[in-house]
Amino acid sequence: MSQYGTLEERVRRKSLLSKVMKPEDCVQFFKPGMNIGCSGFTPAGYPKAVPIALADHVEKNGLQGQTKYNLFIGASVGVEFEDRWASLDMIDRRWPYQTGKNIAKGINTGKIRMGDKHLGHFAQDVGYGFYTENGRMDIAIIEVSAINEDCGLALTSSCGIVPELMMVADKIIIEVNTGQPSFEGMHDIIMQQKPPYRQPFLITHATQRIGTPYVPCDPEKIVAIVESKHRDKGRAFAEMDEKSEAIAEHILDFFHHEVKKGRLPKNLLPLQSGVGSIANAVVGGLVKGDFYNLTVYTEVLQDTMLDLFDSGKLDGASACSLSLSEDPGFPRFFDNWDKYFDKIVLRPLSVSNAPEPIRRLGCIAMNTPVEIDIYAHANSTLVGGTRMINGLGGSGDFLRNGYLKIMHTPSVRPTKTDPTGISCIVPHCSHIDHTEHDLDCVVTEQGLADLRGVAPKERARLIIEKCAHPDYKDQLLDYLEMATKSCLERGVGHEPQLWDRAFKMHLNLERNGTMKVKNWDVKIDLCE
Amino acid sequence: MSQYGTLEERVRRKSLLSKVMKPEDCVQFFKPGMNIGCSGFTPAGYPKAVPIALADHVEKNGLQGQTKYNLFIGASVGVEFEDRWASLDMIDRRWPYQTGKNIAKGINTGKIRMGDKHLGHFAQDVGYGFYTENGRMDIAIIEVSAINEDCGLALTSSCGIVPELMMVADKIIIEVNTGQPSFEGMHDIIMQQKPPYRQPFLITHATQRIGTPYVPCDPEKIVAIVESKHRDKGRAFAEMDEKSEAIAEHILDFFHHEVKKGRLPKNLLPLQSGVGSIANAVVGGLVKGDFYNLTVYTEVLQDTMLDLFDSGKLDGASACSLSLSEDPGFPRFFDNWDKYFDKIVLRPLSVSNAPEPIRRLGCIAMNTPVEIDIYAHANSTLVGGTRMINGLGGSGDFLRNGYLKIMHTPSVRPTKTDPTGISCIVPHCSHIDHTEHDLDCVVTEQGLADLRGVAPKERARLIIEKCAHPDYKDQLLDYLEMATKSCLERGVGHEPQLWDRAFKMHLNLERNGTMKVKNWDVKIDLCE
Ligand SMILES: CC(C)(COP(=O)(O)OP(=O)(O)OC[C@H]1O[C@@H](n2cnc3c(N)ncnc32)[C@H](O)[C@@H]1OP(=O)(O)O)[C@@H](O)C(=O)NCCC(=O)NCCS
Ligand SMILES: CC(C)(COP(=O)(O)OP(=O)(O)OC[C@H]1O[C@@H](n2cnc3c(N)ncnc32)[C@H](O)[C@@H]1OP(=O)(O)O)[C@@H](O)C(=O)NCCC(=O)NCCS
Repeated sequence: MSQYGTLEERVRRKSLLSKVMKPEDCVQFFKPGMNIGCSGFTPAGYPKAVPIALADHVEKNGLQGQTKYNLFIGASVGVEFEDRWASLDMIDRRWPYQTGKNIAKGINTGKIRMGDKHLGHFAQDVGYGFYTENGRMDIAIIEVSAINEDCGLALTSSCGIVPELMMVADKIIIEVNTGQPSFEGMHDIIMQQKPPYRQPFLITHATQRIGTPYVPCDPEKIVAIVESKHRDKGRAFAEMDEKSEAIAEHILDFFHHEVKKGRLPKNLLPLQSGVGSIANAVVGGLVKGDFYNLTVYTEVLQDTMLDLFDSGKLDGASACSLSLSEDPGFPRFFDNWDKYFDKIVLRPLSVSNAPEPIRRLGCIAMNTPVEIDIYAHANSTLVGGTRMINGLGGSGDFLRNGYLKIMHTPSVRPTKTDPTGISCIVPHCSHIDHTEHDLDCVVTEQGLADLRGVAPKERARLIIEKCAHPDYKDQLLDYLEMATKSCLERGVGHEPQLWDRAFKMHLNLERNGTMKVKNWDVKIDLCE
Repeated sequence: MSQYGTLEERVRRKSLLSKVMKPEDCVQFFKPGMNIGCSGFTPAGYPKAVPIALADHVEKNGLQGQTKYNLFIGASVGVEFEDRWASLDMIDRRWPYQTGKNIAKGINTGKIRMGDKHLGHFAQDVGYGFYTENGRMDIAIIEVSAINEDCGLALTSSCGIVPELMMVADKIIIEVNTGQPSFEGMHDIIMQQKPPYRQPFLITHATQRIGTPYVPCDPEKIVAIVESKHRDKGRAFAEMDEKSEAIAEHILDFFHHEVKKGRLPKNLLPLQSGVGSIANAVVGGLVKGDFYNLTVYTEVLQDTMLDLFDSGKLDGASACSLSLSEDPGFPRFFDNWDKYFDKIVLRPLSVSNAPEPIRRLGCIAMNTPVEIDIYAHANSTLVGGTRMINGLGGSGDFLRNGYLKIMHTPSVRPTKTDPTGISCIVPHCSHIDHTEHDLDCVVTEQGLADLRGVAPKERARLIIEKCAHPDYKDQLLDYLEMATKSCLERGVGHEPQLWDRAFKMHLNLERNGTMKVKNWDVKIDLCE
């Protein structure tokens, strides 16, 4: 028993107590090739005890590479699960997002087949049965806080795709987490019907509740109840740096400007913000700033949100997960439970990331890309157009449907040999996840380019002028002028590009460790 | 007076009769540089009399290039308006879509600044005031069937962005079209509030009505009432050809398969289909096929929809416009008015193309791209990545939010010297409007690739195998293998590409008139 109560107290559906077993006893339920669905989201609320037991089993018995599974989880989970599984060669397919050095290596060397999807699509598509041959999951592993008398699941720090898994899973293993307080009551669950029977999500305010706190679960499908005391392995935040603060300042200035112009209300609109140090800095800016009665409608709530709550400026927040750091995030949250609990609503991914509420509420979407091009296409996923980092996440859900769609990035990143060797503003993105039709603003520490109502060639000038690093301004301008001249002469110049050299900066990075090119000349021999 | 009634009968708000004037008398209201918003959509329901009078005025007085306007219209309008204006150099900015040889030429030679936007975004963004300095339109020209006693506008063959224009226009000119029957009662109009006050669109069936038949209009803003007898200049359909029919057959087979698998109901889900001969053929296939009680939730209704109604298989259709051909489409429609009228709902663009109903209803989205790449990114707008054809239209609204997202294209197109000189399947799209995260199926006359749940490298194989033309299969496979080998070796192979030759097919087309390359060799000298 723990300070947070016993398993018996948490499992109020008493008939289930006969199914209690140890994590290692669950190994029997798994067969190679199975499709496994789990709770969890960027790493919060994922099962830990059973996945760890499975990994131990593989390691102890030298079964690496002989027991591969297909993993379908709302977003990334902790390193002790997916990254360890990857290093033990236990993953064949992984949908739709991941984090970790080993799993990324598996994906980029061709060992793991990853599918990268809009998270908001993924959730519903699992319910539609689009990902497996028979449309079902062989087994689902779900972390819960409690199970009520009706076999309703009270989830933990995230909702992920649990409602959809309940519809398609053949067997269910439940991990009851007694190593932390129960999150019972924080979730707002609705079970969606499939088209043509779907109903509206009647959310007209960020934290409005439209469902119940429990995910209905068929008790006959439950094959095991396991007690777990593992905490979510959320990492502490990247420190704010000067660049991030400069970016945050540009964004806050822009908000003030929009309020003055009458295009934003005084308390802004519900905020969505991505992950990393820039998102962090923007929230930091709001903590110190003079906007009040803010709301958040987003995907993940991270540590700095606690600061924003503490500042008294944030009225409430809706998200798919509470992705606090293991330390100091969660301990701080647990110690101040009453202060935060009522102000947070956790929703299933299929609601948190659905176009419907995002667009109706008019979210302000802010995310960090890998690179952006002069016409405002953005790459969120593949370095050099081929190497997967984490995945698309919900960036597209929010950047397509928000009221204002903002991408923020440092203007440059260092390479081993050149502190400004990578320009995050390029002639043409090496992979495109968000198109020019989606983005409203691009921001770097250099400045903010407001692209609304601006045609491509002017947009390019604006982005170069406002956002590119001084080391790259002339170079990019040269490219734009050269491409414009050539394309207009040929009458093909709506959005000028020269395909023999559009990627010269990328190729130069590959070969010479920097995107700084000496000139734009290039000789191509097609060798025919 | 005409067989369809008099102006006096159509204008039931009697005080407006004092503002009746001739089209040429409206020229006084226009000043160079003005922002003009119009009714109309792919070319239906646009004003004609006043735009023609303005063009005549410019032509007669040799004012070409001295009287440029910014044009904001839901989608394309007839050649006698935007294309003639372009040839008279009367357009500075044009948002968000267009059709016509002269306007395309103006755009691609840098004379006209075009902004290409998701139509569903454009509508709301006009209401948000994102496109002009002060957020307003100087003048709006609206074609109507009638004006009721409350100054409610009964529109004609489309709704476009009229509701938003009512919110932002300073002056309004009304063209009352007495040259055709009144469409009064066919429209379902709701005036949306801006966030945070937006309300749900409670549409749970394709043709469900949620509004009123009239657009509320402030009579004091109306500066002129003009009578018009011009008909919409919709072009007759491209004839079906063998390729289109083969594509349609693959799609219908796929529908049958999905019904069998239980992933589609027997009467399918609401259909959205694009423009052109393939869309035509798909509808043709449904006319002959064995699906009943179909519904359509789309953007434009074209001539073949009348066949589908006549077949008794289509229960009802919702769209933003009734884009029938001038002949035989509209005469056929008018002659059988009672047969069609009750089954059609015309909605504002901001509703027809909103993610909310498209996703809730679960539309089956089908559109034709310029090219698709092996990883399933699609180019809908820019030939060679730089030359604008028409624009994105609503393709993204539907391809992002549908239940099934299908792109169909011939596998090849001819060049002057090679009947299969252009492969519509390429290693990497020269422009990306729809990402790999959005598309479910790619179809050519060769076959259908079902990409759901398929990871990138397998996806590439599937698309090449099922969809590429035999003339290009080996060539594309060679590229894929070469790129895969190189990227996996370097541990950067989630989605293999080689930037020194990814566009070799495009460059070869430019230089040698065909995408058939003799080999994949390429020597690049970065000239540094
Ligand atoms: C794109 C993304 C990784 C950037 O976040 P970040 O905190 O700035 O990322 P980091 O600085 O840690 O960079 C991650 C890696 O990508 C590399 N990278 C990033 N941009 C690069 C670029 N333009 N060129 C080359 N490498 C780049 C970094 O060097 C680093 O490489 P490493 O893992 O070998 O050290 C992150 O925002 C992301 O995953 N986005 C997609 C999902 C998303 O938007 N979620 C939010 C809404 S749900
Ligand atoms: C992309 C699109 C033009 C294809 O439609 P289509 O009927 O097959 O087009 P066409 O065969 O008439 O081709 C149009 C032009 O593009 C050229 N073209 C098309 N694909 C090409 C390719 N892959 N390479 C080079 N040229 C190409 C054609 O040769 C033709 O050129 P021309 O005007 O000089 O003769 C059309 O679907 C479109 O505009 N789509 C965007 C909007 C949309 O999807 N709307 C529907 C939902 S709202």
